[in-house]
Amino acid sequence: MSIPNHAQEAQDRYFMMLAIQQAKQGLYTTRPNPAVGCVIVRAESVVGQGFHPKAGQPHAEVFALQDAGASAVGGTAYVTLEPCSHTGRTPPCALGLIDAGIKRVVIAGLDPNPQVAGRGVKLLEDAGIEVTVGILTDQAEALNRGFLKAMRTQMPYVRLKIATSLDGRTAMASGESKWITSAQAREDVQKLRALSGAIITGSETIIADDPQLNVRSTQLCVSADQVPTPKVVVLDRRQRLQYDPKSNYQLCRQSEVLYWREDDLVKLLKRLVSDHQCYDVLVEAGAGVAGSFLKQQLVDELIVYQAPCLLGIKARPMVEFSPLSLAQQLRLDICAHEKIGPDLKLTLQPL
Amino acid sequence: MSIPNHAQEAQDRYFMMLAIQQAKQGLYTTRPNPAVGCVIVRAESVVGQGFHPKAGQPHAEVFALQDAGASAVGGTAYVTLEPCSHTGRTPPCALGLIDAGIKRVVIAGLDPNPQVAGRGVKLLEDAGIEVTVGILTDQAEALNRGFLKAMRTQMPYVRLKIATSLDGRTAMASGESKWITSAQAREDVQKLRALSGAIITGSETIIADDPQLNVRSTQLCVSADQVPTPKVVVLDRRQRLQYDPKSNYQLCRQSEVLYWREDDLVKLLKRLVSDHQCYDVLVEAGAGVAGSFLKQQLVDELIVYQAPCLLGIKARPMVEFSPLSLAQQLRLDICAHEKIGPDLKLTLQPL
Ligand SMILES: [Zn+2]
Ligand SMILES: [Zn+2]
Repeated sequence: MSIPNHAQEAQDRYFMMLAIQQAKQGLYTTRPNPAVGCVIVRAESVVGQGFHPKAGQPHAEVFALQDAGASAVGGTAYVTLEPCSHTGRTPPCALGLIDAGIKRVVIAGLDPNPQVAGRGVKLLEDAGIEVTVGILTDQAEALNRGFLKAMRTQMPYVRLKIATSLDGRTAMASGESKWITSAQAREDVQKLRALSGAIITGSETIIADDPQLNVRSTQLCVSADQVPTPKVVVLDRRQRLQYDPKSNYQLCRQSEVLYWREDDLVKLLKRLVSDHQCYDVLVEAGAGVAGSFLKQQLVDELIVYQAPCLLGIKARPMVEFSPLSLAQQLRLDICAHEKIGPDLKLTLQPL
Repeated sequence: MSIPNHAQEAQDRYFMMLAIQQAKQGLYTTRPNPAVGCVIVRAESVVGQGFHPKAGQPHAEVFALQDAGASAVGGTAYVTLEPCSHTGRTPPCALGLIDAGIKRVVIAGLDPNPQVAGRGVKLLEDAGIEVTVGILTDQAEALNRGFLKAMRTQMPYVRLKIATSLDGRTAMASGESKWITSAQAREDVQKLRALSGAIITGSETIIADDPQLNVRSTQLCVSADQVPTPKVVVLDRRQRLQYDPKSNYQLCRQSEVLYWREDDLVKLLKRLVSDHQCYDVLVEAGAGVAGSFLKQQLVDELIVYQAPCLLGIKARPMVEFSPLSLAQQLRLDICAHEKIGPDLKLTLQPL
């Protein structure tokens, strides 16, 4: 494993950026696998590229090597994640790169999956291939937040989505709440769902709104039926809901919904990783559930869709949370802000 | 007055942009006069430029013509506001342009000041000068919101500034409120103050926070002592405060503060225009005053500094306002959003 030199690094960044663009094509469809892209370069030209499209199908390296054919010999492979070293549903990609005559492999970041974790690099280096690790690592890792966190900590990456007014309210006191955020903002939520292995909601939300919680966007880069259906989890400590094919609530008519009757949210999140391979979790629920996740510091990312309206002091608050002093406030960092139709989308991370 | 043709318009826009950049240099210092810039162009080259720096000093055209000297003859003058036609503290600029031998005058927008209002254009046209009106009008008018609104309606342009948390709170229930927004956000507020002829606050705010409400920034493009001191108005219906050189409150020790004892905010705003030439008014007060201005539709622009923190459901709300249904909500339009240090600055206009 060599440390990149400055002369080569600009070129490496460029081709890794292309590999990341490849990886993005699988963003909504590879779950529970990570999105990975690969670009093969020979004499400073791209001779092959590919991405992993779906669990069970070949890895990015296989498609890129196929695309390159004989041109791969003596070339450099740019891969957004360490090539695999184990025989799974497909033979190990590290061997594939060796067999194809690749001379150098540039990797954005190592694969923390215990089945890989440096072994891919070792296989390549043992075969005399030059390996460079650490080009555009942050950008590449941003594609697979859930997979990487789960492999490292056995906990999923948790996104909490809240739609609110400018004055931090979600509905009138009466419960009246339709159309606070715009159609464009609601469409954007489909992307968050499409990224998620599981969607967690509360029984309150089901009883109040009877939501669908499925992926139905026509504006993803893939058709919604290519996206693995997120597992729906209903927090239902008071056992108010259950599977019933004749239920009034849409979700309760679906047999695959998981009803979580316990208090322990950490246990639930661990279970989602270990038993269901759900690495990205989206929480779409009311102020009570949002407060529980935030207070227990279980939120990795807070996504706020803020409608430019004032609902007033009697309207319902966005998060049930009652710090006793300023010192107990919950502080976050604004990672991104963008207009979505008339609304503002804020992406924040708790500090 | 001719309508611009497309071939010339791109060039006109370019030079008008330069004139607007000139005008911006007077943004904080010309009050109650508008900020105006002028660029003289001959043979597609800038031969002179200038801006109005301060009331009582010469207008932009005078400086630009001085700068151009003899090169002005046969040239085109770009002015961000219609040249004046009346003899005030300085002779009329329309005559100055005629005397200098200018052949064409391009104007961003007409001056609604009843002393000008098209008469500048008429003077120029009567002298055989070609006049084009309407290039970058919106950008030029954005420099003088207050002046233009006051000339048109005898009401000032009202900016309402609120510093709030992500959940729409301004302070803990106890009143504890220091440092909700960052030093950078508080520094940015100095720009709003420097733009303002008057700052309106409430007696509540003075009693609670004893603010200074002066312009003290070191980050304006001019030194703070060049900025005309905004008139401070205290809303004090209950007559709790008054001028007292020995007062505990800083503001009450200043003899120029205006205490407004009446209910009628429209009367106050009209008075600020007619008696004090305050055309840009900044409201910096608590949730009660903010609610009054918003409910009475007296706010032209709402500026929200939003700190990325949650203060909880018991904390104080940003605006005292209690609509009975969603239909009564207050809707706004997001004109701009930018990061100021760790905080977000939103500029909104009520719909
Ligand atoms: Zn592989
Ligand atoms: Zn003038």
